[in-house]
Amino acid sequence: MDMTVSQAREFLMNYQKKLAAYEHAMGSIYYDGSTAAPKGTAENRAQSLSVLSEEMYKIATDEKSIETLEFLDENRAELNERERRMVYLLLKDIREMKKIPLNEFVEYQQLLVMADDVWHKAKEESNFELFRPYLEKIFATNKKFAGYVEPDKDPYDYCLSKFEEGLNKKTLDEFFGKVRNGIVPLLEKISSVSQVDDSIRRGFFPEKEQEELSYYLMKLIGLDLDHVGLATTEHPFTTSLGSHFDERITTHYHEDDFVSSMYSVIHEGGHALYDTGSADENAYTVLDGGMYMSIHESQSRFYENIIGRSRQFCEYVFPFLQKLFPEQMNGRTAEELYKAVNKTEPSLIRTEADEVTYSLHVMIRYELEKRVMAGEIEVKDLPAEWNRMYKEYLGVDVPDDRHGVLQDSHWSGGMVGYFPSYALGNAYGAQFLSKMKKTVDVEKCVRDGNFKPINDWNRENIWVHGGLYTPQETLDRVLGEKFNADYYIEYLNNKIKDVYGL
Amino acid sequence: MDMTVSQAREFLMNYQKKLAAYEHAMGSIYYDGSTAAPKGTAENRAQSLSVLSEEMYKIATDEKSIETLEFLDENRAELNERERRMVYLLLKDIREMKKIPLNEFVEYQQLLVMADDVWHKAKEESNFELFRPYLEKIFATNKKFAGYVEPDKDPYDYCLSKFEEGLNKKTLDEFFGKVRNGIVPLLEKISSVSQVDDSIRRGFFPEKEQEELSYYLMKLIGLDLDHVGLATTEHPFTTSLGSHFDERITTHYHEDDFVSSMYSVIHEGGHALYDTGSADENAYTVLDGGMYMSIHESQSRFYENIIGRSRQFCEYVFPFLQKLFPEQMNGRTAEELYKAVNKTEPSLIRTEADEVTYSLHVMIRYELEKRVMAGEIEVKDLPAEWNRMYKEYLGVDVPDDRHGVLQDSHWSGGMVGYFPSYALGNAYGAQFLSKMKKTVDVEKCVRDGNFKPINDWNRENIWVHGGLYTPQETLDRVLGEKFNADYYIEYLNNKIKDVYGL
Repeated sequence: MDMTVSQAREFLMNYQKKLAAYEHAMGSIYYDGSTAAPKGTAENRAQSLSVLSEEMYKIATDEKSIETLEFLDENRAELNERERRMVYLLLKDIREMKKIPLNEFVEYQQLLVMADDVWHKAKEESNFELFRPYLEKIFATNKKFAGYVEPDKDPYDYCLSKFEEGLNKKTLDEFFGKVRNGIVPLLEKISSVSQVDDSIRRGFFPEKEQEELSYYLMKLIGLDLDHVGLATTEHPFTTSLGSHFDERITTHYHEDDFVSSMYSVIHEGGHALYDTGSADENAYTVLDGGMYMSIHESQSRFYENIIGRSRQFCEYVFPFLQKLFPEQMNGRTAEELYKAVNKTEPSLIRTEADEVTYSLHVMIRYELEKRVMAGEIEVKDLPAEWNRMYKEYLGVDVPDDRHGVLQDSHWSGGMVGYFPSYALGNAYGAQFLSKMKKTVDVEKCVRDGNFKPINDWNRENIWVHGGLYTPQETLDRVLGEKFNADYYIEYLNNKIKDVYGL
Repeated sequence: MDMTVSQAREFLMNYQKKLAAYEHAMGSIYYDGSTAAPKGTAENRAQSLSVLSEEMYKIATDEKSIETLEFLDENRAELNERERRMVYLLLKDIREMKKIPLNEFVEYQQLLVMADDVWHKAKEESNFELFRPYLEKIFATNKKFAGYVEPDKDPYDYCLSKFEEGLNKKTLDEFFGKVRNGIVPLLEKISSVSQVDDSIRRGFFPEKEQEELSYYLMKLIGLDLDHVGLATTEHPFTTSLGSHFDERITTHYHEDDFVSSMYSVIHEGGHALYDTGSADENAYTVLDGGMYMSIHESQSRFYENIIGRSRQFCEYVFPFLQKLFPEQMNGRTAEELYKAVNKTEPSLIRTEADEVTYSLHVMIRYELEKRVMAGEIEVKDLPAEWNRMYKEYLGVDVPDDRHGVLQDSHWSGGMVGYFPSYALGNAYGAQFLSKMKKTVDVEKCVRDGNFKPINDWNRENIWVHGGLYTPQETLDRVLGEKFNADYYIEYLNNKIKDVYGL
């Protein structure tokens, strides 16, 4: 290496700055496609995205760059903690990539493009058979790639750890066991009492006033509107463009139900708080913003559910709703809002599920993936097994595969092992809350509309670090005790007790 | 060259495809910045844009690429007309670039970044002295670069031809002479009769209804909304993203005056018709879309003024306006709209000028640039000369430099020689109209709201060719006679006669 460590360190920062610019470019084209682009322009974007991703791949895997990263890795004793982590994360991806034969990788990418197309059609027609051959290949390829990269590891554990460094079946079996044993009896209890009235959310709520509500909520939870934008899309999402200095959240307005967008905004707002809370020195590096899905969901669902669906929050927000929708809120109370947004009822669709049943939807997907990857069931068995488990755990009859096994896009996108993060996030959030309460009077803060102490706690403990620590390290550092799903189950029990008077 | 001509031709297409993707990326980031981005994110975009433009520059000027382009140039006999034009245009830029010492070029770019900043401040404070040293350097550098690139040419002719292949002072002196002699007497005539009443445009016109009007107009003039998007920005503009398959126009709504956005939409819509009318085979090449400002303006101002401010158009659109704004249009007539949108009155600001006085604003800028570049006056003389000419030709007193010499951003952006295209576009449009009328009953088409025959004519004669021909070639091919500003002057005379009953 004709380079000093100091020169290599400088290279490291420029290399990441370059990659961040390409991500910004592709992110901007993608964001435009979801928010503003005329509908006949997808192919035009695909054309540019394909050039840019190839260019980015070339820069990322350039021989000279890899050599420099490896040189830094050999001299990691001279690097600081953040640089060591950057080099580790950058090399991890490159090394994994190199273990998979290039032609198989390219073939898999092409398969996914096709699979996405076929899945859309299959879902529309509720025709699993159409999608089955693609899904079989996707599972088979995931298994094969796992063997290439980590031959000594269980293939599903490899898939899980791709999305969540260090995650495995053992942890999840225990976790979902607690979830199942905690939530299923709760649902039985609820079915024995009268259901709450959620008519407050129905009516006519013009988009313009709902948009006003969005900005009110964004400001309330502490987002900096100079650096966080809002747009409308078919499905809400959050994304950073270039760095955490430019964050975007989106929502979808239903004019017959204001609660839907209200909680989308708080949910995506939680993601945006996490990203934008990243230390400024993380900008334009791989450490920038929230990196792991489970921690990300722990934050989004913390603000959406733990804060946003609390009685204090409903009480604080209600006067604003009365001002915004004077006719619709006439004769209504904050208590009615609180009940309505906490209505718990088993249903078919994960993305529309309430706080309590949500993790059961995720558990079913986890169990099915795990068994397919272990060869215990086959892809062709998925629809029947799906329907059986929805009946067993949620008590609902799945009418067709469109409302069942075909509802999510994750498998067609090759994201086997991704679902569990959603449920883990819920549980992490409850445990963070319990820790936070030791130093912050959370209920009082929310009652006063004062989010600063809550956000400061999250920022110092979680946000500021970006991708510096793995989820496991984050939990250890923040909690000072092991992850424990009991906090989550207890939290749900208290909520249900309060809402349903059980 | 270890390459066949056929391989080099393939390279040519891929090379342009790559450059188009970078332009798409930067265009998307820029568009986002103007339309959707939170206000504190400009620095973040600048960071990525600087990386991407450097990457694009590297690709564009890569040694191997230039060699291949030169190889194609040597073998141009084997290329088709379009390929020859691509190679010519690509090499022209590169060769010019190579004649300018790199350090001077970089210094100039840095000067422009500073100058833009200082100009904003100077305009705000109406303080020309602040901006003067920068403007002096900008003019001096333009002169010096002209000497590097085309030492035998008049420096201002070089500047003009940079924006408009083949344009020179001789053509423009004659053109602006006609403009001056044609328009100044017209203004005198108008000042002797009573001014028209334009109160129909004032009132309260909610943004939502104005947006409906925008889409109505876009569809009416024949834009394909699957490929043309609309957004709102501070200043209206038109841009292609990636190729002519994705076009965007923007407007700015003033709720106290619907006419402003109405004609912005038609104007930008004309630009968009031109771009999207480009032959599909032009996509992802330098030939795509409208390339020259004068022809571009000929189209935008054709739709805005010649079509959009005609009596037939006002009559066709009026019933829709009545439906959209029933109260505001109560008791009003299409004739009142026609008069209001054709009100002619000398004013201070170019971008707000009416159809008749517009070219005088441009003429003044042309005369001043020409004399500075020839050394006849100095930059320090510009404010006084500006004010003198506004008094002489438009009869208005300039109260301060903010409403005078500092109003436009072009000079601070280094765009010396750019202004004349605006006025030429007006004149080209009038001559195109006279030719079009030989085969198309334009008035009847507009009266019927049937834009197809008009658009077909423009498409076949102008749009489809993209950048294949220079403006001069385009005029020769379309008109079959020399460019003649008499058509323009005659058109303006007829309009004023009709509106003012002269």
